[in-house]
Amino acid sequence: MDKKAVDKHSGADFPIGKLTILLAVLQEHEWRKAIEQQLTEGGYRFTIGRVGAMDLIKVVAAIETAAKNNQIIDGESYREVHAIYHAIIEAIQSVGRGVVQFGDILRTVGLTFSIVRGKMSGAVNHEGEWIGVCVYGTIGAPKKGFEHEAIGFGFNHI
Amino acid sequence: MDKKAVDKHSGADFPIGKLTILLAVLQEHEWRKAIEQQLTEGGYRFTIGRVGAMDLIKVVAAIETAAKNNQIIDGESYREVHAIYHAIIEAIQSVGRGVVQFGDILRTVGLTFSIVRGKMSGAVNHEGEWIGVCVYGTIGAPKKGFEHEAIGFGFNHI
Amino acid sequence: MDKKAVDKHSGADFPIGKLTILLAVLQEHEWRKAIEQQLTEGGYRFTIGRVGAMDLIKVVAAIETAAKNNQIIDGESYREVHAIYHAIIEAIQSVGRGVVQFGDILRTVGLTFSIVRGKMSGAVNHEGEWIGVCVYGTIGAPKKGFEHEAIGFGFNHI
Amino acid sequence: MDKKAVDKHSGADFPIGKLTILLAVLQEHEWRKAIEQQLTEGGYRFTIGRVGAMDLIKVVAAIETAAKNNQIIDGESYREVHAIYHAIIEAIQSVGRGVVQFGDILRTVGLTFSIVRGKMSGAVNHEGEWIGVCVYGTIGAPKKGFEHEAIGFGFNHI
Amino acid sequence: MDKKAVDKHSGADFPIGKLTILLAVLQEHEWRKAIEQQLTEGGYRFTIGRVGAMDLIKVVAAIETAAKNNQIIDGESYREVHAIYHAIIEAIQSVGRGVVQFGDILRTVGLTFSIVRGKMSGAVNHEGEWIGVCVYGTIGAPKKGFEHEAIGFGFNHI
Amino acid sequence: MDKKAVDKHSGADFPIGKLTILLAVLQEHEWRKAIEQQLTEGGYRFTIGRVGAMDLIKVVAAIETAAKNNQIIDGESYREVHAIYHAIIEAIQSVGRGVVQFGDILRTVGLTFSIVRGKMSGAVNHEGEWIGVCVYGTIGAPKKGFEHEAIGFGFNHI
Repeated sequence: MDKKAVDKHSGADFPIGKLTILLAVLQEHEWRKAIEQQLTEGGYRFTIGRVGAMDLIKVVAAIETAAKNNQIIDGESYREVHAIYHAIIEAIQSVGRGVVQFGDILRTVGLTFSIVRGKMSGAVNHEGEWIGVCVYGTIGAPKKGFEHEAIGFGFNHI
Repeated sequence: MDKKAVDKHSGADFPIGKLTILLAVLQEHEWRKAIEQQLTEGGYRFTIGRVGAMDLIKVVAAIETAAKNNQIIDGESYREVHAIYHAIIEAIQSVGRGVVQFGDILRTVGLTFSIVRGKMSGAVNHEGEWIGVCVYGTIGAPKKGFEHEAIGFGFNHI
Repeated sequence: MDKKAVDKHSGADFPIGKLTILLAVLQEHEWRKAIEQQLTEGGYRFTIGRVGAMDLIKVVAAIETAAKNNQIIDGESYREVHAIYHAIIEAIQSVGRGVVQFGDILRTVGLTFSIVRGKMSGAVNHEGEWIGVCVYGTIGAPKKGFEHEAIGFGFNHI
Repeated sequence: MDKKAVDKHSGADFPIGKLTILLAVLQEHEWRKAIEQQLTEGGYRFTIGRVGAMDLIKVVAAIETAAKNNQIIDGESYREVHAIYHAIIEAIQSVGRGVVQFGDILRTVGLTFSIVRGKMSGAVNHEGEWIGVCVYGTIGAPKKGFEHEAIGFGFNHI
Repeated sequence: MDKKAVDKHSGADFPIGKLTILLAVLQEHEWRKAIEQQLTEGGYRFTIGRVGAMDLIKVVAAIETAAKNNQIIDGESYREVHAIYHAIIEAIQSVGRGVVQFGDILRTVGLTFSIVRGKMSGAVNHEGEWIGVCVYGTIGAPKKGFEHEAIGFGFNHI
Repeated sequence: MDKKAVDKHSGADFPIGKLTILLAVLQEHEWRKAIEQQLTEGGYRFTIGRVGAMDLIKVVAAIETAAKNNQIIDGESYREVHAIYHAIIEAIQSVGRGVVQFGDILRTVGLTFSIVRGKMSGAVNHEGEWIGVCVYGTIGAPKKGFEHEAIGFGFNHI
């Protein structure tokens, strides 16, 4: 898919939050190529990953590790770890919709997360970088067909 | 865009949650046509709307009214009103990421919401209907450029 | 106790929520017979049970299992499982009074729960069925005499 | 209804929490007489009242005022005001089931509250007094038939 | 440091809350002597302690045990245990700043707590005693340098 | 008070969080001079202020305005506004101890806040700047003597 085709599809550029959300939601869908192309051309650092449990410690650790291993953040900088940590917590609280404290009783067969770091086009002066974390998947009882979709998104300056 | 073109674009069918999320996120983007086509062909009832304030009463009222006016729910049935009410609350709690109680101090220049009602393909026995509500927009101080994106999604049986 | 006696005692019929609450609170008290009679005559499905720990997973599992084993809900229907799940979560959040997240440090020597399913007399058009879950018991430190009473009630359409 | 009849009905004494809950729930039901008799004989101070709105300030104020006017608490003692304040907040959080922050969008056509102060029979050494607050009523949209029951209970040492 | 020196340093007496906060925050700092002197002269009962984990059960148990062992409260009185329990919960919720439910993923290398019991000078009629609990320390990832300070304070009548 | 006197008083340097907390708590106490001297010598930017209401919008606005007017943050930078906003929200949630949503019913006769920006000595590589916000005051009913102390602290990278 060349640049022209992408333009034709996307019309206008997506802001960083939409790019993060679409990266997590589209997964293996064909449209994801256009999202990744826009991310690459826009100079964003990004990655996607999966985590198989709703255990809060594991979800946070999996996202944080993916961010470090893919050079989205500098794992030796507490500022960057602090920034992504709060973005992850926001995303998980968003997924939990007020009952996140019951995480123990929720199971999931597959949570996909995306992490995107870069400029926020709409911000004043286009200053500095921001980081977005999106978590999408199904939440429910540990039984096939007894779960439904949920999404969470967190955002922070970095 | 004919059926074939949609197939080429979408590859596989999206589940009801993704359709709801993409409807709110894509907005005027060209891809929305494919989403609407899939919704129509899948027998879903759906609508999108906008609300200009983060005032909780107004957001809930705007979404509920849109659902009634577009025949997504039967406004004379308390069961249906109860079902969408909890889906809306979930979506707003999800947008708020744990600080929704500070709604008073958050402003927004535009919140887009989508409502989708229909079958959940993944559920056991494909029984009954479900309703999804997605809210997407920017949240922040009442000053241009001092806001960032947020998304919330709620889901319920109806 | 015949119909007349019940009438004399109850004066008027209780709505579904009161029936659920009284079933959990009255326990072995003589008045419970009148409540059960009213539930039976009103065509409600109901059960009561006990769970000995404030461990959230166990409380949810115990109530859900009791609902399935007593044919209050159809365990093969995700819609019904989803409906009771949210009613249970509401009841537990209600018991927790804002500190439910500290469930780990709360112990209980006996939590009684009731589940009632049926018509809601006050609802418009008397349409469809609803499910109520009430949890009543003592919460406190794991030491006799260092606990006090608490109650929670959740309600949903089914 | 004489003492004997009460004994026959109640069988055993209810603890302070049950008395508070039953006082709010039974309302005009005949059984309430037996509850009030047990409260009087047990040396409890108690009252019931009603408040027509879910506005948090008004609910708290109505309960606090009723407690003062009926000599349940000494309005000139900050300790007693502090004790009932936290019991009221617990009761309201319990009613709200995790969404109390949306109080603005909830309406009610009638909330009944009960306040009971006295000994807790189960506590070690039967020392000191405790206060219970129960709130029972219907919560929902401001439209007849579009609401359902809810209950909350708070408890504190005084 | 004699009484005069303290007066010169402190100027005016601190209220009970400030004394509790300063006791936890100052730790080994020289000023602590003046705080302890003021506490002793004011007839307060107090203690400080440390707990090495953010595990909620352990933090609550450590503070409660310290209060009993140092005769701040009477461990045989449920009223006193109930009073300090709620003060501890308030302090921990305050430390958690809305994400306390994620306690599982927070680690700490050292949490200092203080407990102070005595008169509240500002209260009407100077009646009865109150108890303050302050928790101060660093919260973060289990890695040196990846944590920052946090403080929590709870208060109750006793 | 010369450098030597400060050393004698403070013994060791306080970290940024303690400085922020002590600035808000000490207020007009003589020790504050030593805190301000340490802040100045450490190259911190700081300010203190007061706000007379527990109205959330006004508290957030007062702290944010003070930060801008005293050049603690650059009001034209969304990153800096975003950083202090989350620190303020954390401080207020910390003050509220789980009942901040009832802000409407809480009154205060005086909330003192401090804002400190600068290096965090304990962080890895001593990189970048951080911002701390502390809120200290009395919370209670709008009646003299019917309130008690509370404190909240928020912290963020900037």
